[in-house]
Amino acid sequence: MALDPEVHKEKMKRIKAARDKIMATKTEEKGLIIVHTGNGKGKSSSGFGMILRCIGNGMQCAVVQFIKGSMPSGERSLLKDRFSDVCAFHTMGEGFTWDTQDRERDTEMAQAAWEKAKDLIRDEANSMVLLDEINIALRYDYLDLDDVLLFLAEEKPPMTHVVLTGRSAKPELIDLADLVSEMKEIKHPFRSQGVKAQPGVEF
Amino acid sequence: MALDPEVHKEKMKRIKAARDKIMATKTEEKGLIIVHTGNGKGKSSSGFGMILRCIGNGMQCAVVQFIKGSMPSGERSLLKDRFSDVCAFHTMGEGFTWDTQDRERDTEMAQAAWEKAKDLIRDEANSMVLLDEINIALRYDYLDLDDVLLFLAEEKPPMTHVVLTGRSAKPELIDLADLVSEMKEIKHPFRSQGVKAQPGVEF
Repeated sequence: MALDPEVHKEKMKRIKAARDKIMATKTEEKGLIIVHTGNGKGKSSSGFGMILRCIGNGMQCAVVQFIKGSMPSGERSLLKDRFSDVCAFHTMGEGFTWDTQDRERDTEMAQAAWEKAKDLIRDEANSMVLLDEINIALRYDYLDLDDVLLFLAEEKPPMTHVVLTGRSAKPELIDLADLVSEMKEIKHPFRSQGVKAQPGVEF
Repeated sequence: MALDPEVHKEKMKRIKAARDKIMATKTEEKGLIIVHTGNGKGKSSSGFGMILRCIGNGMQCAVVQFIKGSMPSGERSLLKDRFSDVCAFHTMGEGFTWDTQDRERDTEMAQAAWEKAKDLIRDEANSMVLLDEINIALRYDYLDLDDVLLFLAEEKPPMTHVVLTGRSAKPELIDLADLVSEMKEIKHPFRSQGVKAQPGVEF
């Protein structure tokens, strides 16, 4: 692509002017309800990436893990060992529902996690609260969807960001959210190559 | 959903048995070529989430930013200030192409970033190298696609993970990759609500 440098410059100037005009209309700051869903990789990891951003910006934040509690993970070790002063970390779930095989216990754990989540969100010192895999707890009816929707709509402080991850997000939650990304699996090496879950990538 | 606890337990046991059988076939470990693309949010942040996982697991890693260099970001501050011993961080780009308005300079910067990236990938001490926004550099032909594909195919050490982010990933890169997630925008508050980029969420 042998583009004339001056033609390129002129084109980029016009793009910049158009962008600046659009961005000038983007003035509002607000706490967002953010949902990461879909069958692909990247839902939890991008939630943790935002937690890293918050910590780097000196913003207090918190994590509640609804499902993956029994498994060791790099993100949990690091946040608990090094950043417990700026990022509360609560692991309430005991693992996937097919591991626990006890619906009543799973429900109790999810309810306890939700109570903790509400406390953390109500605390305005927290700029962001990540509710990791809460969509799974909602999908299996361990939590009441209306409770969660009403709390987010009515009680979330206006400047607090809440990030909800997990596949099969409820349509009503997507309706309520401000920012929704669907992580779509295009290719996955578990499926196609017999590669197992690896540290750094999956945990 | 008033499911009998014993029926639930039985069903979960069967799911677990089926999963265990499948997972037993997933035995291989290998360094993956991972691509995050699409128009939605979460591509860079999930790359940084994986970097957080690596650091938490005591794995040395590295980041090269191809585009967003001129902007301050929480992830960069934190990684540079606190983890420079385990995660090399190189910011080579000077900003979006419509800000720099200088195609030759952008190309030089991208080429320099790619040279640095190759050194970091060749160094087997690094378990993961994140090439943030490299897809943008490829899209604008600042880098030669064949150079990048050949290097990944022939020179990447077998156990090293390389993560390539940015929208509009080249189809040939997707073909070569082991793991590809497309982040699809379902809803974004820039567009729908006039909300601006906010710390913790976007940077």
